[in-house]
Amino acid sequence: MEHEERFVELNLQLPPAPEPKGVYTPLLRVGNHIYVSGHLPVNSDGTIQRGKIGKDIDQEEGKLAARQVGLTILATLISNLGSLNRIKRVIKVFGMVNATTDFEKQPYVINGCSELFVEVFGRENGIGVRSAFGVGSLPENVPVEIEAIFELNEE
Amino acid sequence: MEHEERFVELNLQLPPAPEPKGVYTPLLRVGNHIYVSGHLPVNSDGTIQRGKIGKDIDQEEGKLAARQVGLTILATLISNLGSLNRIKRVIKVFGMVNATTDFEKQPYVINGCSELFVEVFGRENGIGVRSAFGVGSLPENVPVEIEAIFELNEE
Amino acid sequence: MEHEERFVELNLQLPPAPEPKGVYTPLLRVGNHIYVSGHLPVNSDGTIQRGKIGKDIDQEEGKLAARQVGLTILATLISNLGSLNRIKRVIKVFGMVNATTDFEKQPYVINGCSELFVEVFGRENGIGVRSAFGVGSLPENVPVEIEAIFELNEE
Repeated sequence: MEHEERFVELNLQLPPAPEPKGVYTPLLRVGNHIYVSGHLPVNSDGTIQRGKIGKDIDQEEGKLAARQVGLTILATLISNLGSLNRIKRVIKVFGMVNATTDFEKQPYVINGCSELFVEVFGRENGIGVRSAFGVGSLPENVPVEIEAIFELNEE
Repeated sequence: MEHEERFVELNLQLPPAPEPKGVYTPLLRVGNHIYVSGHLPVNSDGTIQRGKIGKDIDQEEGKLAARQVGLTILATLISNLGSLNRIKRVIKVFGMVNATTDFEKQPYVINGCSELFVEVFGRENGIGVRSAFGVGSLPENVPVEIEAIFELNEE
Repeated sequence: MEHEERFVELNLQLPPAPEPKGVYTPLLRVGNHIYVSGHLPVNSDGTIQRGKIGKDIDQEEGKLAARQVGLTILATLISNLGSLNRIKRVIKVFGMVNATTDFEKQPYVINGCSELFVEVFGRENGIGVRSAFGVGSLPENVPVEIEAIFELNEE
């Protein structure tokens, strides 16, 4: 099955593709690579999720926030590329977790995004390399920020 | 106008291109990509700016520090490539902000570098993807560290 | 001398290549680039080193942990590629240091990994670009996490 068909079948509710919060572009194509800027968890109504894990929210809520970042990245991809079928695979997910300094479950939190990408792109193409770590702080005090790299299909 | 002409017209004062502070090279060319190591804010006299945002300095000073990191990256580019005209465009800016854990304006701070790159490379080629986030600590307690990727022109 | 010969001569003790701790792959090849996920310091017996620098361990122990992360990355490379001779060079080392917020010697710590890569890949090919910075927290409270990019030889 193709990514776009799988995406439609999942009946996911995407947030609006976010406007940049500074001097950058949300997505850039260079050759067959799609570089995606650090994305925040945008809700369907355009608001942004807030809270530090271990202080304001727990790791389950953090994982849901990571899934919401994944949905926001999908919104950016579709808005810029037209169809997810133009994507061959996930190359990299880079997950920044806003947590207290004693937090140890960053991989669990970022799985919220990675599991979404498996649902949409399949096991073969939805799993790339990844780093997950805890930051000191994030823009708007969001729980998770994620940047990513995708590979495009030959045209 | 070409990047190098625009750069000369801006009459910017560059710091000396920094020596590596460890076992790495400041810049590496791979194909048509220029990978740039994490750079610190080096002043024109070779000293390094220090201070944590929200504790030692404020966000305006942080933004100026990010601009100084941008100038330091330009010094590395010119020292290694000879001319900025060899560069096609900014691909990515990765901005690490040394701030207190309640800080929320990382994009504002990193704009200090991004706005400089727009001045030098123009709107079309000076704006790439970006992440901005708050670290726990930085080398020499600098306020900002930035790494970057540029694309080279065909030769 | 070739990388694999140099590696054998060094008589290094490698840990087992780690299983992913989440939904990702430890290594992905895209064209002639090898992307390596964030790796933790795995000991030869498969246990993981723990501790925050400046609180639980000092910077010398942190540097040894970074070397151990380097050995763990080598284990992943050999397990996936068969031989280190398939690698042309180190492109990038991205070093995340779990330290107290007043720590300033991240480059010294990450040298533990970079010096190992020079031993194995030589000065010409073992030194790439690098960033080193302090995180707020890391998975399992390890002292160091490192991701990397390598270039493959033409085949």
